[in-house]
Amino acid sequence: MTKQRIVEILRSGKPDAQVTIQGWVRTKRELKEFAFVEVNDGSCLANLQVVLNPDIPNYQESLQQMNTGASIEVTGILVESPAKGQRIELKAEKAIAYGDADPETYPLQKKRHSFEFLRTIAHLRGRTNTYGAVFRVRNACANAVHQFFQERGFLWVHTPIITASDCEGAGEMFTVTNLDLKKVPLTEKQDIDFSQDFFGKPAFLTVSGQLEAEIMATAFSNVYTFGPTFRAENSNTSRHLAEFWMIEPEMAFCDLVGDMDLAEEFLKHIFKSVLESCPEDMEFFNKRIDKTVFETADTIINNSFERITYTEAVSLLEKTDKKFEYPVEWGLDLQSEHERYLCEELFKKPVIVTDYPAKIKAFYMRLSDDGKTVRAMDVLVPKVGEIIGGSQREERLDILEKRIDEQEMNKEELWWYLDLRRYGTVPHAGFGLGFERVVQFMTGMGNIRDVIPFPRAPLTVDF
Amino acid sequence: MTKQRIVEILRSGKPDAQVTIQGWVRTKRELKEFAFVEVNDGSCLANLQVVLNPDIPNYQESLQQMNTGASIEVTGILVESPAKGQRIELKAEKAIAYGDADPETYPLQKKRHSFEFLRTIAHLRGRTNTYGAVFRVRNACANAVHQFFQERGFLWVHTPIITASDCEGAGEMFTVTNLDLKKVPLTEKQDIDFSQDFFGKPAFLTVSGQLEAEIMATAFSNVYTFGPTFRAENSNTSRHLAEFWMIEPEMAFCDLVGDMDLAEEFLKHIFKSVLESCPEDMEFFNKRIDKTVFETADTIINNSFERITYTEAVSLLEKTDKKFEYPVEWGLDLQSEHERYLCEELFKKPVIVTDYPAKIKAFYMRLSDDGKTVRAMDVLVPKVGEIIGGSQREERLDILEKRIDEQEMNKEELWWYLDLRRYGTVPHAGFGLGFERVVQFMTGMGNIRDVIPFPRAPLTVDF
Repeated sequence: MTKQRIVEILRSGKPDAQVTIQGWVRTKRELKEFAFVEVNDGSCLANLQVVLNPDIPNYQESLQQMNTGASIEVTGILVESPAKGQRIELKAEKAIAYGDADPETYPLQKKRHSFEFLRTIAHLRGRTNTYGAVFRVRNACANAVHQFFQERGFLWVHTPIITASDCEGAGEMFTVTNLDLKKVPLTEKQDIDFSQDFFGKPAFLTVSGQLEAEIMATAFSNVYTFGPTFRAENSNTSRHLAEFWMIEPEMAFCDLVGDMDLAEEFLKHIFKSVLESCPEDMEFFNKRIDKTVFETADTIINNSFERITYTEAVSLLEKTDKKFEYPVEWGLDLQSEHERYLCEELFKKPVIVTDYPAKIKAFYMRLSDDGKTVRAMDVLVPKVGEIIGGSQREERLDILEKRIDEQEMNKEELWWYLDLRRYGTVPHAGFGLGFERVVQFMTGMGNIRDVIPFPRAPLTVDF
Repeated sequence: MTKQRIVEILRSGKPDAQVTIQGWVRTKRELKEFAFVEVNDGSCLANLQVVLNPDIPNYQESLQQMNTGASIEVTGILVESPAKGQRIELKAEKAIAYGDADPETYPLQKKRHSFEFLRTIAHLRGRTNTYGAVFRVRNACANAVHQFFQERGFLWVHTPIITASDCEGAGEMFTVTNLDLKKVPLTEKQDIDFSQDFFGKPAFLTVSGQLEAEIMATAFSNVYTFGPTFRAENSNTSRHLAEFWMIEPEMAFCDLVGDMDLAEEFLKHIFKSVLESCPEDMEFFNKRIDKTVFETADTIINNSFERITYTEAVSLLEKTDKKFEYPVEWGLDLQSEHERYLCEELFKKPVIVTDYPAKIKAFYMRLSDDGKTVRAMDVLVPKVGEIIGGSQREERLDILEKRIDEQEMNKEELWWYLDLRRYGTVPHAGFGLGFERVVQFMTGMGNIRDVIPFPRAPLTVDF
């Protein structure tokens, strides 16, 4: 017996070969003289059609158990399929039903279900066509991320999840504690006595691994993180998660131009790579979810990204007749509608906007000679707006200290971050992108909760 | 200018080629007629020797800044090195010092430092030989993990970090909350009012992604997790971390034998792969950290693992004259000393012990027909003891429910886990291994805090 994955059989199985497959029944059709069972093992979108003749052992008994959702094993001979749309099918010689699925209660019957409903059964939704495709593409994309960086000599570094520092000064962090919430110990001054907590001080879930990635880049030159990050933001939207995976490359001896080059190359790579490794799944998205999926991929892969400064962008936005909801003015941040106008209507391709006003960007971004702007960049793409945010980092100790003071952050807590500028400081740059945003963008899935297996959001922590 | 990584120059740089390198000064030696500077860029253990002649621009000024720890860029011509132990060196034509490092305050001067001290400067320790090697090996090992599973068609699945369920019923979980700890809201019954918390119920940091990996395996057949997991255990030892990365493959249609086969193949693969991709780093560990590093790798790679049952193991342990600190008796768990005796002294190779008493193992492990043992396995290796723990999972609904009841766990909370047995249940199996334990085992590093960039442990949450 040669156990084979269905993806391999459909791709390269040869007639007359004997194979064994294992998977779950999608549908069963009983005809007078035989029965068809469509089997899926999650290795690809397509099912393998199994033909059951009454002459196989326990025909009736087996067949009875092969309801939608049942798990089965079939050994048989591959034959050319007379049916349309499939090259090959499996003529069963022996079939075993492992586990049944009661048609009265199994929620995934043939009819279409809404994504909302399927979210409530996230433990079963991976067995549907859509989520099967989503999670295969998610894996392919994750794999492409590692491949891209490893080929270029970047080290994957694991930055801490639990942290005592609030990287961006952005707040919105979850508290991690081992204290008994019913009896939180207090100091004499009636503050929380964190000396009794596990870490001896307040601890949080990280919002970004960037600062620690900078540490690693100043030892290994090129590194990247790929791990979970968190926001305790009370946003119940289709674009926000409380827990999501982020990718953050960081390069020593690199300026903003090198950073932009890498970001562009990176996006092109992951799109190309997923199109190559999941053609059927991408075809499915283009057909069933969003008819512009291939067009989007094409836009990313076959254009060189436009590069303009924030000042130029503002001027372009001021010139247009298009009405925006939010004001456009030098010093204000660009809104999604502005970003989308730039890449969808004006340039009709991805746009990288650089050199934002210092006041609206984080303390660690490198101040330009004009004293007003920082070497930041946002990569804007059609339908989404910003998908990547990055910057050259401030490597000059004195200016960095001034920026920290201006933003009223705690310099003492950042002693180690400042040390990187004290000892062998280098120009360096990096960017971050939310992995789920990329998968959403790639697949056309409308809600970010549908591209992560078990989404976390306000009041949502099931499974 | 062709910017090159030092690893590539040392491996394949050709004399007479012009290159530019960027990195940090390790040492400087000034002779009368010229100066030698050893430069490291983190791409490999070895430094590139740069020869500076007084005829290059700003010779004195540049040289003055090239203290240990300074960041520099050098453009020059590769020449064969007359010195012993190096094939090639760089004759500088131009040198730029980016950032100095004051010899009076820079902590990483040439002398040896203890690992304890270096842990207090974890933001700089990556620049030393030992930690450089550790984090390159860590990356190579992580990459080998993905490669192993991706080649075999396993999907990388991201199981949740924040969870409402305590997988193993083991306790020791960190609480994740958004409540104000100073004013924790109470219900009328004086319980904590979690309805006011972010997730609307108590939430924790995961101790394992296994249960969710089982969900994904029953849709995609073969999956694995590779992500952070947490223990709020108050253990200040050289083998425990509060935050560590875990790898957990899960296979549908797989029994314990398939599970053991995968575990063995997996360990062999990652050892082989790291030896291939980091030969110099592994040589360094074998020479400087632990003289049995290569022997250990050899033991893993070139032996077929012994497979014995727990009952056999107990009987072997009872027969020996060796004195143990802890008692040996059927029904008691094996201690590290027992595990090490089996693989170090008795079999002199890795040993897989199977079929442990049900009472000492988790509820989800498959009960055998004897009613007393479960289809569990532990992979034991020399010097460490257990490095992998796994099992075939209980796929029979009625028996699983009974086991949950016996362990007084909350069946309602596990409704989705039980559903996997209700609908198309399959024999399935998997295992888990702590990534840092593997890196520790591979490199011979004595303390687990030295193989993760920023360790988290009781009272330890810096950087």
